[in-house]
Amino acid sequence: MGTQPRGGRAPTGAIPSKRKRQMARIVQKYGGSSVATIDLIKEVAKRAIAAKNRGDEVVVVLSAMKGETDRLHKLAREIAPDPPARELDSLLSTGEQASVSLFAMACKAMGERVKSFLGFQAGISTDDSHLSARILDLNPARIRTELAKGRIAVVAGFQGVNRAGDITTLGRGGSDTTAVALAVALGADVCEIYSDVDGIYTTDPNVYDKARKLDMISYEEMLELSSLGAKVMEIRSVGTGMEHGLRIHVRHAHGTGSGTIISTEVSDMERTPVRGITHQTNEARITLIKVKDEPGVAARILGLVSQADIVVDMIIQNRSRAEGGEPGLTDLSFTVPLPDYSRAMELMNEAKKSLGDAEVLGDDNIAKVSIVGLGMRNHAGVAATMFQALASEGINIEMISTSEIKISCVIDKRKAELAVRAIHDAFGLDRPPEELA
Amino acid sequence: MGTQPRGGRAPTGAIPSKRKRQMARIVQKYGGSSVATIDLIKEVAKRAIAAKNRGDEVVVVLSAMKGETDRLHKLAREIAPDPPARELDSLLSTGEQASVSLFAMACKAMGERVKSFLGFQAGISTDDSHLSARILDLNPARIRTELAKGRIAVVAGFQGVNRAGDITTLGRGGSDTTAVALAVALGADVCEIYSDVDGIYTTDPNVYDKARKLDMISYEEMLELSSLGAKVMEIRSVGTGMEHGLRIHVRHAHGTGSGTIISTEVSDMERTPVRGITHQTNEARITLIKVKDEPGVAARILGLVSQADIVVDMIIQNRSRAEGGEPGLTDLSFTVPLPDYSRAMELMNEAKKSLGDAEVLGDDNIAKVSIVGLGMRNHAGVAATMFQALASEGINIEMISTSEIKISCVIDKRKAELAVRAIHDAFGLDRPPEELA
Repeated sequence: MGTQPRGGRAPTGAIPSKRKRQMARIVQKYGGSSVATIDLIKEVAKRAIAAKNRGDEVVVVLSAMKGETDRLHKLAREIAPDPPARELDSLLSTGEQASVSLFAMACKAMGERVKSFLGFQAGISTDDSHLSARILDLNPARIRTELAKGRIAVVAGFQGVNRAGDITTLGRGGSDTTAVALAVALGADVCEIYSDVDGIYTTDPNVYDKARKLDMISYEEMLELSSLGAKVMEIRSVGTGMEHGLRIHVRHAHGTGSGTIISTEVSDMERTPVRGITHQTNEARITLIKVKDEPGVAARILGLVSQADIVVDMIIQNRSRAEGGEPGLTDLSFTVPLPDYSRAMELMNEAKKSLGDAEVLGDDNIAKVSIVGLGMRNHAGVAATMFQALASEGINIEMISTSEIKISCVIDKRKAELAVRAIHDAFGLDRPPEELA
Repeated sequence: MGTQPRGGRAPTGAIPSKRKRQMARIVQKYGGSSVATIDLIKEVAKRAIAAKNRGDEVVVVLSAMKGETDRLHKLAREIAPDPPARELDSLLSTGEQASVSLFAMACKAMGERVKSFLGFQAGISTDDSHLSARILDLNPARIRTELAKGRIAVVAGFQGVNRAGDITTLGRGGSDTTAVALAVALGADVCEIYSDVDGIYTTDPNVYDKARKLDMISYEEMLELSSLGAKVMEIRSVGTGMEHGLRIHVRHAHGTGSGTIISTEVSDMERTPVRGITHQTNEARITLIKVKDEPGVAARILGLVSQADIVVDMIIQNRSRAEGGEPGLTDLSFTVPLPDYSRAMELMNEAKKSLGDAEVLGDDNIAKVSIVGLGMRNHAGVAATMFQALASEGINIEMISTSEIKISCVIDKRKAELAVRAIHDAFGLDRPPEELA
């Protein structure tokens, strides 16, 4: 792939090429907003047919029409606040079932040969974890047969069937999961993820209008961005794609842009240390001041939190400021999801006596700003540039955590967007990578 | 059964009995209007649970929530006027799928153990005739297992699966079909059909307020009444019930009445010659005056009509009034469904030259009034009583047809309801059968 032109010029017909191209097998996934109305369903049907007319084999995976899943959830909640998962799965799966039937009708009305498949018909076998099932086996025999007959196959996303024959759903981003798993099982050349955004951006364009669309991004970078709140693709699907070397192409369902290709790392990406910036405001910080600095204290504190099923994200432990020269005391900070904040604070206040009468401080007005890039592995001074950018705007850094290809800083929530813009400028992300080399 | 008390006192717990009763296996079917809202779904869940608490095994079959099937049809028609049947089946089946999930949630919320089943999970195998599939095989193994575990089984009506694994639907009244077929396959003691009417009446209570609910009716009478427009039960299901001697109990979903039991004929029924009166206004009459009275003329005329896929109901051929003593001419009348009337008239007008220049008359202002009763087999003078009742109101009879347990008269549409009331009075149907003996 390193010999190909930069950007979206994949051999899948994503961008017309003058060279004669071979038939490709494509899986196209359309999200709920892309099939929200009958007219939009007709539009995506046209797009699938256009791909087929270019000589490719086309499998389409659909989400439920936008709003439908919410409507079904609401009906269920009218009956019970916590409806049984098996029944909720069977109810929710009707959303995708309707989408694929309507899509097939639209294709047929345009003279195209097509067949729809529900999860169980597409051979998607899962475990028994209703509402968040995992695919155990995928046997797309019927889909292969229909493709061989020259038909488009349209598959209900988000659903499968367990060994007992019960309908399961795959949890958040489940239609992405279906699409990527099908693409792998079918040996597809590319999995195209269509939604209402036209690709992966250096940062959220709503936050900074200088945000630039990326032509390509590595799986690793996409994984980090997804885990840091970028909502374009579900993280498990990116992982599956990476594992199998499946090319994933993120595109706008109703636009003509070239989108973003998620693929193995390429040399171009190495040129720029930072590829994307995210900010999240869905966490809160808890700090214990002057905790006894004994072995096992941190484990005890975080043990209490995890026993309450609260997931901790960042953890920082510092030597206490040597006030009065007291030895043996430390400060410990960690972040928890905002909905769990008050429960975690209660736990800490109950436990503080046994922790050497530590002081418990909480802050739910924080934001986490993160930079991601494979290239930072080889570039010195990336952290310094980020911190300098924040300092120049007078933004105090409260916590820092890093991984090989990521740096996150916790700051004051009110300054989050300002921070994103400052960092974007500092790394010159509005300019194309070749200028940054 | 002849030794039991008259009426609804069946051994199924339909009416509380002071004698100790054995466990029964009950299939309950609820129509769309009985599950039209979340509150109504909760109500029918309570009713099913009450049956189980009386010690019975309970299988529930549900239709789609009222309005849902229309909504899905409308979505499909927005895409194509004639959507492909396989896709329409998959779309329509989501209506019942949602109903059974919601019902199961409601039971669970009331502390009841329950499991929902779609057609394919309930073992309902059909042929390939999408939109009007026939059940080929029914293997309710999973349902038996759940019943044995003390659970209520709730099954999506109207749907099955063909050999290829595609979803099919059973056509009009399909949920009745599912319920009766399941009841037969499970060897149920009774199939209870719940809807928004509280039983079978001597005639439509909206037409005559003296209409009386029947406690029992025979399969044969019910078949005739269904074919004559009584909408309470689908005719195929009555036929299946008759074939297997399955007791069918028609009841109101939210009332406390004893309903009507459809069963083998009992001596009580023999006492009254007439059990029910119907009227239909969905046909039109075509009369050919002075057709050549040659062999094969009627066959030719009706052949033309049936080749156009128009179903003829009544056919009457008379000697022509001997105007001017002309021999060899006859009058032929037949009725066709109202929607096919103008097409049939066109056909006749095109063909009339070849029929001896017959005169073609049409009338779409007719009604068919019918009386049904097993007892008329043994009672003389039933036809005379009916004709006298019509004559006494000055109603002219335009056509007559009879079967062993039915007499139908075509009359002026405007006098249909008057005719029903007059006949109802003439046979004293407002009085209980024992008074008529």
